[in-house]
Amino acid sequence: MRIALDAMGSDECPVPDVTGAILAAREFGDTILLVGDKNRINQEIAKHNTKALQLDVIHTNEAIFMTDKPGIVGKSKPTSSMHIGMKLVKDGDADAFVTAGNTGAAMAIATLFTLRRIPGVKRPALSSVIRVSNDRSIVLLDIGANADSKTEWLLQFAVMGKIYAANGLGLTNPRVALLANGEEEEKGNQLIHETHALLKDMDLNFIGNIEPKDMLAGLADVIVCDGFVGNITIKSFEAMGSTLFNLLRSEIKQDPLAMVGGLLAQNAFRRVYRKVDPFEVGGAPLLGVNGVVIIGHGRSNAKAIKNAIRQARLAVNGGLIHAIETGLKNVSQINKESDM
Amino acid sequence: MRIALDAMGSDECPVPDVTGAILAAREFGDTILLVGDKNRINQEIAKHNTKALQLDVIHTNEAIFMTDKPGIVGKSKPTSSMHIGMKLVKDGDADAFVTAGNTGAAMAIATLFTLRRIPGVKRPALSSVIRVSNDRSIVLLDIGANADSKTEWLLQFAVMGKIYAANGLGLTNPRVALLANGEEEEKGNQLIHETHALLKDMDLNFIGNIEPKDMLAGLADVIVCDGFVGNITIKSFEAMGSTLFNLLRSEIKQDPLAMVGGLLAQNAFRRVYRKVDPFEVGGAPLLGVNGVVIIGHGRSNAKAIKNAIRQARLAVNGGLIHAIETGLKNVSQINKESDM
Repeated sequence: MRIALDAMGSDECPVPDVTGAILAAREFGDTILLVGDKNRINQEIAKHNTKALQLDVIHTNEAIFMTDKPGIVGKSKPTSSMHIGMKLVKDGDADAFVTAGNTGAAMAIATLFTLRRIPGVKRPALSSVIRVSNDRSIVLLDIGANADSKTEWLLQFAVMGKIYAANGLGLTNPRVALLANGEEEEKGNQLIHETHALLKDMDLNFIGNIEPKDMLAGLADVIVCDGFVGNITIKSFEAMGSTLFNLLRSEIKQDPLAMVGGLLAQNAFRRVYRKVDPFEVGGAPLLGVNGVVIIGHGRSNAKAIKNAIRQARLAVNGGLIHAIETGLKNVSQINKESDM
Repeated sequence: MRIALDAMGSDECPVPDVTGAILAAREFGDTILLVGDKNRINQEIAKHNTKALQLDVIHTNEAIFMTDKPGIVGKSKPTSSMHIGMKLVKDGDADAFVTAGNTGAAMAIATLFTLRRIPGVKRPALSSVIRVSNDRSIVLLDIGANADSKTEWLLQFAVMGKIYAANGLGLTNPRVALLANGEEEEKGNQLIHETHALLKDMDLNFIGNIEPKDMLAGLADVIVCDGFVGNITIKSFEAMGSTLFNLLRSEIKQDPLAMVGGLLAQNAFRRVYRKVDPFEVGGAPLLGVNGVVIIGHGRSNAKAIKNAIRQARLAVNGGLIHAIETGLKNVSQINKESDM
């Protein structure tokens, strides 16, 4: 498999990006195409033993920053590492593209300039794979691509999310739920009410509304919401998680007895941290664009980049793009028939 | 001061409710009117030394359960402890009402059957007071009363939230923000965009959009959102908090060395827990109804009930209801003038 990686993606690029690529090439045996500034990439590569690894460097002299406006980078930076990396996928020179860069820019460049949408997709969605307490992973989408969403988009998010959970994460008949302010059918806002009514009649293993608590308990596999709610939900999880870890650290530091206790318990702490660490997943796909694109966190370290590459190869091996195209066709077929 | 308490409110009622009332009467010296089943209330009172405390029992033979539908309880249970308790406030026989019962029912009974709205209020909102890491409290609203909200309602939530932060929590010139998926002005959904544009021109110390992370860091005092988003946000905080504490507990239990460490660090743990424990606040008001009504969590313990009563007396002492009426008049005056 050939995976293109945005070497200029993460906040600390190209260090974690190149190191992660090396880890991935070593562990998975794939060819990694490192897209970005060749001097800086080669400088990083030189620090490692990369003999026998399949690493190619594709030079570009432009990179996208976190501060770049998604609405203009497609035109203003036509040879960015994102643009070139996605073009490799579009032209069949790579099987997938992975970036820890500007998410909005990635969505815009994929949708409007390079890969474009899978036929039938109304709006691509940004997904997040979250590890939940019982070591399962769940998919939450949309987490930010569509702040205002329509019912028919949410229905497609449900279909695409379910296919990704099956073909990318290997879950059997994933359970689909709608994120809401209560599990009862009458809970939700108007968008959720309308979507709920339609999802009930679709063959999607829809289990109804779900609250954040049951979501983190792994009671559904695919959780659907609009991009505004999804983004705030994921950021609320992150905010509370880091707040608690920081509070614990600072309280323990102020108390010599607790310091000793903290040292004795540090392996337990580490196991907890690993369970909730988003870098163990690494990234999640832009669902609906016509090619596998995995987006990682800007703060990705090398492990996160390696794991994002793992998500890319799972999606490619699962035939994600073809499955979404077929799945959406079937749904629109059913909808047409039921309209008659 | 005379505070009416729903003795049949909490999940374990009337035990925590009555015990909390006794703690409050002892600490604050107020008269607490315990509304509910007099036999069960007196049975609880008999377990404590209540000499010299001002406790009155107001008997009702109906109570509202968490499973009751808010839409019908106002009519189907006209003598519930909530109904009677709010009527005491309406009739001037109590200064405030506190309940740990069914939130939706409390909102319906307050708005449609007893206290009704403060003149000028379009929609009452449910607020939450959250303690943040630096020991400050912030107000989040709406957290569930209005799943679909309009711009003009959100503007009123901002005004009411700011007044509560000043007159109930004692904050000086509270900073108002909109909960959004990014702090930049262009972030948000359509509702947030429209509200943002109008809030900028109001004299509210509006500081812009805020993300969950900065909210928990205490960078704003009043955070405004629609009831659907607010409810999911608060539930996401709670879900991640309890998930992490449970994970830590279970990992520590499985590891003898960590068990010892956990014991040594237990005071630090307790301090962290206390910092994020919602029971330290106890409850938050229904903002916009014409009387002080404080809603606590269904799982309230006695400490939470006592602290909810504390919130009630702070709001009464701060002249909350009058301040909201005046505040909304001033805003609608300004809006009218700017329309001319």
